Amino acid sequence: MDLEQMIVSMCQTAKKAARVLANTPPQAKSQALLQAASRLRQSGEILLAANLQDVTTGQKHGLPAAMLDRLTLTEARIEAMAKGLEIIAELPDPVGETISQWRRPNGLEIAQIRIPLGVVGIIYEARPNVTADAAGLCLKAGNAAILKGGSEAFRTNSAITDILAAAAVAVGLPEATIQLVRSTDRQAVALLLRQDRFVDVIIPRGGEELIRAVTERSAVPVIQHFSGICHTFVDSDADLQKAAQICINAKVQRPWVCNAMENLLVHEAVAAQFLPAFVTDLEKVGVEVRGCERTRQFVPQVKAATEADWRTEYLDLILAVKVVSSLNDAIEFVNTNGSGLADAIVSENYSNVRRFLNEVDSATVYANASTRFTDGYEFGFGAEVGISTNRLHARGPMGVRELTTYKYVIYGSGQIRQ
Amino acid sequence: MDLEQMIVSMCQTAKKAARVLANTPPQAKSQALLQAASRLRQSGEILLAANLQDVTTGQKHGLPAAMLDRLTLTEARIEAMAKGLEIIAELPDPVGETISQWRRPNGLEIAQIRIPLGVVGIIYEARPNVTADAAGLCLKAGNAAILKGGSEAFRTNSAITDILAAAAVAVGLPEATIQLVRSTDRQAVALLLRQDRFVDVIIPRGGEELIRAVTERSAVPVIQHFSGICHTFVDSDADLQKAAQICINAKVQRPWVCNAMENLLVHEAVAAQFLPAFVTDLEKVGVEVRGCERTRQFVPQVKAATEADWRTEYLDLILAVKVVSSLNDAIEFVNTNGSGLADAIVSENYSNVRRFLNEVDSATVYANASTRFTDGYEFGFGAEVGISTNRLHARGPMGVRELTTYKYVIYGSGQIRQ
Repeated sequence: MDLEQMIVSMCQTAKKAARVLANTPPQAKSQALLQAASRLRQSGEILLAANLQDVTTGQKHGLPAAMLDRLTLTEARIEAMAKGLEIIAELPDPVGETISQWRRPNGLEIAQIRIPLGVVGIIYEARPNVTADAAGLCLKAGNAAILKGGSEAFRTNSAITDILAAAAVAVGLPEATIQLVRSTDRQAVALLLRQDRFVDVIIPRGGEELIRAVTERSAVPVIQHFSGICHTFVDSDADLQKAAQICINAKVQRPWVCNAMENLLVHEAVAAQFLPAFVTDLEKVGVEVRGCERTRQFVPQVKAATEADWRTEYLDLILAVKVVSSLNDAIEFVNTNGSGLADAIVSENYSNVRRFLNEVDSATVYANASTRFTDGYEFGFGAEVGISTNRLHARGPMGVRELTTYKYVIYGSGQIRQ
Repeated sequence: MDLEQMIVSMCQTAKKAARVLANTPPQAKSQALLQAASRLRQSGEILLAANLQDVTTGQKHGLPAAMLDRLTLTEARIEAMAKGLEIIAELPDPVGETISQWRRPNGLEIAQIRIPLGVVGIIYEARPNVTADAAGLCLKAGNAAILKGGSEAFRTNSAITDILAAAAVAVGLPEATIQLVRSTDRQAVALLLRQDRFVDVIIPRGGEELIRAVTERSAVPVIQHFSGICHTFVDSDADLQKAAQICINAKVQRPWVCNAMENLLVHEAVAAQFLPAFVTDLEKVGVEVRGCERTRQFVPQVKAATEADWRTEYLDLILAVKVVSSLNDAIEFVNTNGSGLADAIVSENYSNVRRFLNEVDSATVYANASTRFTDGYEFGFGAEVGISTNRLHARGPMGVRELTTYKYVIYGSGQIRQ
């Protein structure tokens, strides 16, 4: 069987499995997830042996240390995967919810019912834990999952997938509930992206380059997560103590994630009071500050920011700072330079807060809180599928509910159209 | 200015207009729609003159009579466009609705708020009424519209767009609220489909060929409406009188639309009783029947159906009929051959109805009613943007609500992430 036949056949099988899963009761899905968790725990030796092969090959090929670290399984990481599946098992089942229901004058009753998306393709890099996590989330929402992980983790991902698929089979679900593309041929992804007859959505998880490559080549709809260039605007009426705490948190707590602050905007009325002490605080914790000309009037020690800085996702302890003359300028700046993911205003002024929240066109907009809360767990979704920068279908943090769609069920008693 | 510059500039202007429209109160949008309606009524002469030029050119180029008819404006059609805009003006405004709202343990209040999609591109064929209709629906939902109509209607569409844009300006909205791609160069569409930085969604309205061409070339997400191969299944426990009425309605009332029935499935237990009289009824009203082998045992006068018949959208007075042995076979047949748009079961058996509704994977599934109800107006949406065969974002009949997305607004009091 050549590669194309293999991919097409996987996708067809997944479609069939999806039909079964769509009508599988919540209990059976939870059972499969709990089974998978317990089987992962019992299979430590097999998993670690497979992983050792991947890690050894990775070392031979000179993979960077950070990548080797992400690739490496440990007892603790296996336990974390198992625990993750148990948490997903406990989540409320999103399928079957009546989203809305109404009766027409002719007596037809129309119900809008939440159902699974169908077949979900997940394309990711070298973290083996994504295999269990993504498969678990797809299964919870009643979807069949086709996983394509990074080649570096091929043996580890194969071993994890074998265990998950066996758990599904053990509770009577189709084996194709969870499938892994078992090829390291680069063509495999390209072929998968063309199966729009069978695959309903593709979710790439990883760096911007991966996401862009997938989006450009995909005939299947893609839920993207592009860069996070997040702003905090310290308004003229800000509580400056709150502002400092929120900004430090947004920049420093986990600088390498998408919801960390990259650009700080400060209203000119408070710049003199706010910036010197705050920049000193930033420098104390190792943040490199790059400022606009006006910023450097207040903190002359900082580097000059270039135009490119305003549109750079540093993912690092670097912050670009700009003094703005008005709320209008701040809103305009965010809408022009931001990535529409997470932006905050710090202000005690009611009207200014309201305008910022309404007029900043981002998936999540904050008043007086850190942008770091843009996250499925922090939103209370219990799990996170990803954070979408799409405008269609799902926007912002995605939970299992965002892996569903709906159908209309119409109950009649012989109605015909006049 | 070359074509590419023109398209990019239109899209940029539309994006700016969309920001304004997103924060325009309902009243102003309604006023613009009512203004547009009254201006259309007052501009009969201008519109008819522009249309006459299009029609004359079309005649010269030998356009088919049906196309010329669709292209031709009359006083009555202008009145219908104006009335349509007034109806849209009266619809509830979808923007600003709180879809859900909750409070987190740390005191953050998270509100999911309905907002416009942004910039909507509509690509359509030679019906000038789509210009007013599509622009009106986009405006109601707070979106900026970029319209690209068929070249045959270029002058008519230009005249209509001038009037609509002037109405927007008259109530203080941006001129770019409604824009028409004023080029008959085929390259214009290709360029528009590449503007994913500015355009949020493309909705093609027209034949399958147009939709496929748009989908294949678009970097912008597309809401598609592919073919409608709709089924009715007459179950063993059907009320055969209801079945006959529903089937006649689904096939005959408007055979050229997507929600008309193309395939009839009849349970073998009632085939002998149902088919002879029903096929005679169909033949009386001019329907050509094509039957499977078993069908032809009961109604030998009908043509034999080929495999291709089961997957053909006739859009005509033709019906393919198949006798099936079980509910299972019927469900399997629909899921294999249908287009997932609208499918119905006629049955008095509770369990069979339930299984069909759950297991048929279509946007709209009916018990004991005609598939012809798959329609925004019949669903009570007050207007119809289209009928989506997508699974993401919107499925089935789309009203103005489906031209919106959401953002999360988060109210804090200094929260930072631990």
